[in-house]
Amino acid sequence: MREDNPKRLENINANLVFMSELVGTAIATATTALLTDDLSLAEQVISNDDAVDQLNSEVEVLCFRVAALDAPMATDLRMVMGGIRMATSLERMGDLAVHIAKQVRLRYPNPSIPADLQSTFQEMGDAASKIVAEAGRVIQSRDTTLADKMKQYDDTLDRLHRDLFTAVLSDSWSHGVEAAIDVTLLSRFYERFGDHAVSLARRVIYIVTGEPYANN
Amino acid sequence: MREDNPKRLENINANLVFMSELVGTAIATATTALLTDDLSLAEQVISNDDAVDQLNSEVEVLCFRVAALDAPMATDLRMVMGGIRMATSLERMGDLAVHIAKQVRLRYPNPSIPADLQSTFQEMGDAASKIVAEAGRVIQSRDTTLADKMKQYDDTLDRLHRDLFTAVLSDSWSHGVEAAIDVTLLSRFYERFGDHAVSLARRVIYIVTGEPYANN
Repeated sequence: MREDNPKRLENINANLVFMSELVGTAIATATTALLTDDLSLAEQVISNDDAVDQLNSEVEVLCFRVAALDAPMATDLRMVMGGIRMATSLERMGDLAVHIAKQVRLRYPNPSIPADLQSTFQEMGDAASKIVAEAGRVIQSRDTTLADKMKQYDDTLDRLHRDLFTAVLSDSWSHGVEAAIDVTLLSRFYERFGDHAVSLARRVIYIVTGEPYANN
Repeated sequence: MREDNPKRLENINANLVFMSELVGTAIATATTALLTDDLSLAEQVISNDDAVDQLNSEVEVLCFRVAALDAPMATDLRMVMGGIRMATSLERMGDLAVHIAKQVRLRYPNPSIPADLQSTFQEMGDAASKIVAEAGRVIQSRDTTLADKMKQYDDTLDRLHRDLFTAVLSDSWSHGVEAAIDVTLLSRFYERFGDHAVSLARRVIYIVTGEPYANN
């Protein structure tokens, strides 16, 4: 039985990488939907999230199967225990892409964001797409040096979120209260997306090194 | 070895119930801090969250220990697998209480919410406290009929959140953009708190009945 262990662990990893790809597509598509007020793209993000949820459940089953059948130790045990947490992070990131898409649907056919914030949200979308792509690479390669790059993208998302607050609260804000709330929530979704990616990277570092990591 | 299984499962359950109590204290304290602009209460919520995070990690270790040592089946297996998810929900609820407390700290010594919204946030705080108390009872008793009551409190939180949106966007809103964003975010934290409690209840239903449940 024990010779199946590496294969089962590979299977967990492959599922997590696949989840990261689906979430990458979701956040990129949600951003395009947001920037172009495209309802059908928004609907696509919303309905495709089921596949992410399904993989999340599958990873959970796989992790417990390895725990029960293979009695893993050390790195393998951390991988199996961390697998569920990483799947949870990716599932939450998928939910955040869905939140963005639902905001597009809510405002359609009106634009979801004022024209003068298009470039800000484009930047947020780019950073979010890059951070989840890195997350996929970190899961696949276990190369923890990639985590630093993720931190940079997360810093970008944090900065954009702060800048947006400043813009919304400045005297020159001319789009009213509803738009102010909309863009703040949207920006927060991107910022949280980055946080979850970083917490996933921390998990990988813990799996690889066994060193305790800060809680998310 | 196998005779220890019920004890280990009990231990998981006891940790989850304890987590629910800590989170109950956190949300009640955060609400009081919010309504009375009490910085020291807010700081208390923020620093006490470490204990919730710690329990979250402990539940994870316990669940994998049972999986590895006892090869649980049926309800026990679902309990062990669900334990990690329930701990995650409670940990997220604790984070949301912290988000509320941090908002109080951010605005201190200014009031965090306008006086005319005090009663709304009091209601939100009450519903959130009740829903987490029910969550603790559901975990302890496995009495899934209690889940219906939780759904009611969650409906209350959803309704209050919608009403708040309406108030903020009405012509009579006189508190400006910053306060509009603040109260919308705060209200969203309570609303999400309810969602996580309901997802936890769904998990218990799945553990008890084995029937598939909607994904959170």
